[in-house]
Amino acid sequence: MPAPKKIGSQTVAFAQPPVILATAALAGAKEGQGPLRPTFDKVIEDPYYGEDSWEKAERRLLQEALEKALAKANLQPEQVDYLLAGDLLNQIVAANFAARALGIPYVGLYGACATIYEGLALGAMLIDGGFADYVLIGSSSHYSTAERQFRFPTEHGSQRPPTAQWTVTGAGAILLGRQGKGPRVTHATIGRVIDLGSTDPMNMGAAMAPAAANTIVSHLGDLGRQVTDYDLILTGDLGYYGRELLLALCREYGYELGERHNDCGLMIFDRQKQDVHAGGSGCGCPAVVTCGYLFQEMSAGRLRRVLGVGTGALMSPVTTKQGDTIPAIAHAVVLEA
Amino acid sequence: MPAPKKIGSQTVAFAQPPVILATAALAGAKEGQGPLRPTFDKVIEDPYYGEDSWEKAERRLLQEALEKALAKANLQPEQVDYLLAGDLLNQIVAANFAARALGIPYVGLYGACATIYEGLALGAMLIDGGFADYVLIGSSSHYSTAERQFRFPTEHGSQRPPTAQWTVTGAGAILLGRQGKGPRVTHATIGRVIDLGSTDPMNMGAAMAPAAANTIVSHLGDLGRQVTDYDLILTGDLGYYGRELLLALCREYGYELGERHNDCGLMIFDRQKQDVHAGGSGCGCPAVVTCGYLFQEMSAGRLRRVLGVGTGALMSPVTTKQGDTIPAIAHAVVLEA
Repeated sequence: MPAPKKIGSQTVAFAQPPVILATAALAGAKEGQGPLRPTFDKVIEDPYYGEDSWEKAERRLLQEALEKALAKANLQPEQVDYLLAGDLLNQIVAANFAARALGIPYVGLYGACATIYEGLALGAMLIDGGFADYVLIGSSSHYSTAERQFRFPTEHGSQRPPTAQWTVTGAGAILLGRQGKGPRVTHATIGRVIDLGSTDPMNMGAAMAPAAANTIVSHLGDLGRQVTDYDLILTGDLGYYGRELLLALCREYGYELGERHNDCGLMIFDRQKQDVHAGGSGCGCPAVVTCGYLFQEMSAGRLRRVLGVGTGALMSPVTTKQGDTIPAIAHAVVLEA
Repeated sequence: MPAPKKIGSQTVAFAQPPVILATAALAGAKEGQGPLRPTFDKVIEDPYYGEDSWEKAERRLLQEALEKALAKANLQPEQVDYLLAGDLLNQIVAANFAARALGIPYVGLYGACATIYEGLALGAMLIDGGFADYVLIGSSSHYSTAERQFRFPTEHGSQRPPTAQWTVTGAGAILLGRQGKGPRVTHATIGRVIDLGSTDPMNMGAAMAPAAANTIVSHLGDLGRQVTDYDLILTGDLGYYGRELLLALCREYGYELGERHNDCGLMIFDRQKQDVHAGGSGCGCPAVVTCGYLFQEMSAGRLRRVLGVGTGALMSPVTTKQGDTIPAIAHAVVLEA
């Protein structure tokens, strides 16, 4: 029987921490106008990306990100044990069709915008558990597919409240391996669903902040660590208002995140110059920031130990219309350079 | 470093096969009129199940199935390491809300109707990999939520072609543990996405049969086993036409499934007496047959070794309307009494 790897209530430690061998980040035009442009592998100026629908464009983005991560590691799809992927589209069709193109045994995930971290945590377990040598992980979103599925037809030109976030057009992919050079995944904390009664789908940051706080506090407690044990605690897509709430909630538990915290939704756009209201969101937001900026900073040794925390709002337009509150989740992994 | 557990291209063998400690199967009224009624824990006569929407009824069904499996094993939610669950609803909201109620660290899955087997395979990996002592797995579907989301408003009374299947109202839950008494999960084969160009969402069996054949043939090849090594090869929800195709496809690869094969979609309804056309389908179909009939037959020793094969069609109404063909997947696990 293998030694138990569980620490505390929610965290696992990897005996042989799996390695991030390569990543790829593809982003849309608006994201390319933001401060993280130099960290993207490719910026797609055409929202259709040469396809005849936004959904097909998103699928192509995800497929190319996955292929690019493989190419960087000089691997063929046949060498990869599992593809773990998901997105925001109904029935995660971007991931399903990208998986069809690659032909890798496929585990479909749904963790809303936390999906890339859900995949990273699971992928590390599959490798450390002895079930895989290579796992490919991917997630994507597209402003126009998300708008028309979750909100209004884009042609409608609906006014957005200040708390609304801008869904990132982008896809990220991570190739995780048993051995090699790169940042390592040392721990994972799988989140619980938290719902403090938020009902406004135009303020997703408020719905997700309590889940992020719960996972971060559980993680630190499980490992007996402090905020200062991390160079950076990077949340997925809380945005401006969600971040404020996260800081306040963590403070109640005795943790001052302060300048150690940043949020992918705040980093991806220039809030002063770009009209994105409370910041970026969507599966693609943590995916491209993690696969671009974070991977590069860690590979260069400028960040040594990071807690990456994917955050997802688990409602649907149907549950909102039926009067439900918004459940949310956050999954965290520790990355060490 | 743990010993590699991969065999052949797609199959893993568990060093300490995890145990199915308990299951629960809750089914709807029409399912309760079928031949498997005695195998269900509860039959729900009211499609609303006392709630004010079908979606909330489905969520409640899933939550109760999960709670019942826990209760049978005399466990509290706090003792369970992970909940792995998913369903057919957009953004898998039945699973998300059931996860909220239970408070167990939650990994959301989307494998369409293959979800219960995707969860069983992953859950066994998490336990055998040393990351969990107990994993709870669940999946559900509801005739009325699926009809209105994927097809037509039920009030429309749309005529169904003979190849159409009837979405099962039901939820199944499996409690998997590291030790104890019960059928064991000895191997898992994660499927690839297969798409032979089927375009008719009213004939899902035809779309899924090639994926089922691919996974079964890969599985048998990986382990060097024959059909007769299994007392039963049980597919998820191919229905009448899908089964015919599966038998023909496997024959081309030199495997005669014959009487060793059955399909949950054929078993759950009485095709002569119940107006279900090609049989049952939906996440709940393999879930309730596996958690009811199969678990009971194996616990009683009437079936000793079974290959359970979940089958899922991975399209969405949007991809169908945009002219895409239907990708499908099948995940298999070996259960031994």
